[in-house]
Amino acid sequence: MNAFIEKLLAAQKRANSLVCVGLDSDLAKLPEHLKGDADPVFAFNRAIIDATKDACCAYKPNLAFYEALGSSGFETLKRTLQQIPDNVPVILDAKRGDIGNTASKYAESLYGELDGDAVTLSPYLGFDSIEPFLSYQDRFAFILAVTSNKSADDFQYLECDGRPLYLHVVEKVRSWNQHRNLGLVVGAHRPEQIAEIRSAAPELPFLIPGIGAQGGDLEKAVSYGTAQNGIITINVSRGVIFASSGKDFAKRAAESLAAFNAEVRSIQEQRA
Amino acid sequence: MNAFIEKLLAAQKRANSLVCVGLDSDLAKLPEHLKGDADPVFAFNRAIIDATKDACCAYKPNLAFYEALGSSGFETLKRTLQQIPDNVPVILDAKRGDIGNTASKYAESLYGELDGDAVTLSPYLGFDSIEPFLSYQDRFAFILAVTSNKSADDFQYLECDGRPLYLHVVEKVRSWNQHRNLGLVVGAHRPEQIAEIRSAAPELPFLIPGIGAQGGDLEKAVSYGTAQNGIITINVSRGVIFASSGKDFAKRAAESLAAFNAEVRSIQEQRA
Repeated sequence: MNAFIEKLLAAQKRANSLVCVGLDSDLAKLPEHLKGDADPVFAFNRAIIDATKDACCAYKPNLAFYEALGSSGFETLKRTLQQIPDNVPVILDAKRGDIGNTASKYAESLYGELDGDAVTLSPYLGFDSIEPFLSYQDRFAFILAVTSNKSADDFQYLECDGRPLYLHVVEKVRSWNQHRNLGLVVGAHRPEQIAEIRSAAPELPFLIPGIGAQGGDLEKAVSYGTAQNGIITINVSRGVIFASSGKDFAKRAAESLAAFNAEVRSIQEQRA
Repeated sequence: MNAFIEKLLAAQKRANSLVCVGLDSDLAKLPEHLKGDADPVFAFNRAIIDATKDACCAYKPNLAFYEALGSSGFETLKRTLQQIPDNVPVILDAKRGDIGNTASKYAESLYGELDGDAVTLSPYLGFDSIEPFLSYQDRFAFILAVTSNKSADDFQYLECDGRPLYLHVVEKVRSWNQHRNLGLVVGAHRPEQIAEIRSAAPELPFLIPGIGAQGGDLEKAVSYGTAQNGIITINVSRGVIFASSGKDFAKRAAESLAAFNAEVRSIQEQRA
């Protein structure tokens, strides 16, 4: 079994949680009392990680929020990653996609310099933009199939040769998956696509964003995603980390995560 | 006229060049004698910029090569950008694409922190992934339509509702272009697409990669791209910056750029 998936499943079992905490730690949205800190984003992340590390199955920092900090952002991200226990996997949400010789540099950055267990990648450039990531056989890449934003319709749902573009992505990802280190991003925005894609690719792990602030249907996301023993992780970012903007933010994040966990467990029990 | 396009056209006229120099300054490929430098990539870029700044119309660093350097990469990129004369525009080749609230952070990073004149973006997530960039009306974004890699076929050429996916991208980009700050990346890999897309979108500036190491057809790229008074810039990366791996690398880069410029001018003269 792929090392990332092994780590993810162990964390899911240990924490009894399918929830991945998205560290989209936008400086502008941090609690006021942290803003005087030398590295407020790190101070925020450390408190969030301390409060949630035993109750989630993964962390997913989106690189945009760190790149927006300029040269210090990379260090803030690295320091953040050091706070995450070794047995909780890290998904670096980068959505990179470039031609082969360039993609190999992104792989160096994300798997080497940042040492992420997994990444997200964009499919628009096709196989050679994904290939350099495949050779890191102990790492894992989630390829965007259906995203959770409104404009996903613009291209992903276009009917191409008789079926929507996202199903072409699913089919290609299956064909590229010799090392069993590929999965899919399948947004919860329209849960029927989760069912359809699970049926088309029972063996592929799903990263499911769009729950919480983005309003996706948790019940359907879990039910459809875990059909056929499918592996999923449900990402919640703002819905956990920005549960409160007061001094109690970490405690409230833990409570919000606990509520998501309880809801997911109840869905799983109803299905069992 | 958009400020980036104004700067680009002025530089094209001044340098009598349509060539953009791609600063894909892969540390592993630098001349040996630079590798002992405290910041070899910066030393390399500075020499390349000094030798080429009067003879090209833009610079295009691809962020992957800087991110692969870890935390120092951002500083190396910033220092590099400071070496570029103010009247030569900078295209930050980032190919980002994420949901709206995250895309706005990428815009902050690329237009704010790094102060790029233009960027490249990936279309897979649709309008709301591009929208935050549009509001920077003095900046410019090239959206990937057809890329120059072999696997571009995997998705970009799929027949969707009667025409290839890339033509849907072209049509959407035209419809999003109220502020006249959008253009297209159109690879030189298959020049017939340059002709087709120029005909579909005469008003959109093209960034044309795939010339040089990637083997695209320069004659057709220039002829087809500049039809209907189309604005283009032809990117050459490895074909200029890695013309030599010896101590003469900067001189040889300038010579290679001069040869590309001469070839482009001769094509333009034949057409005039």
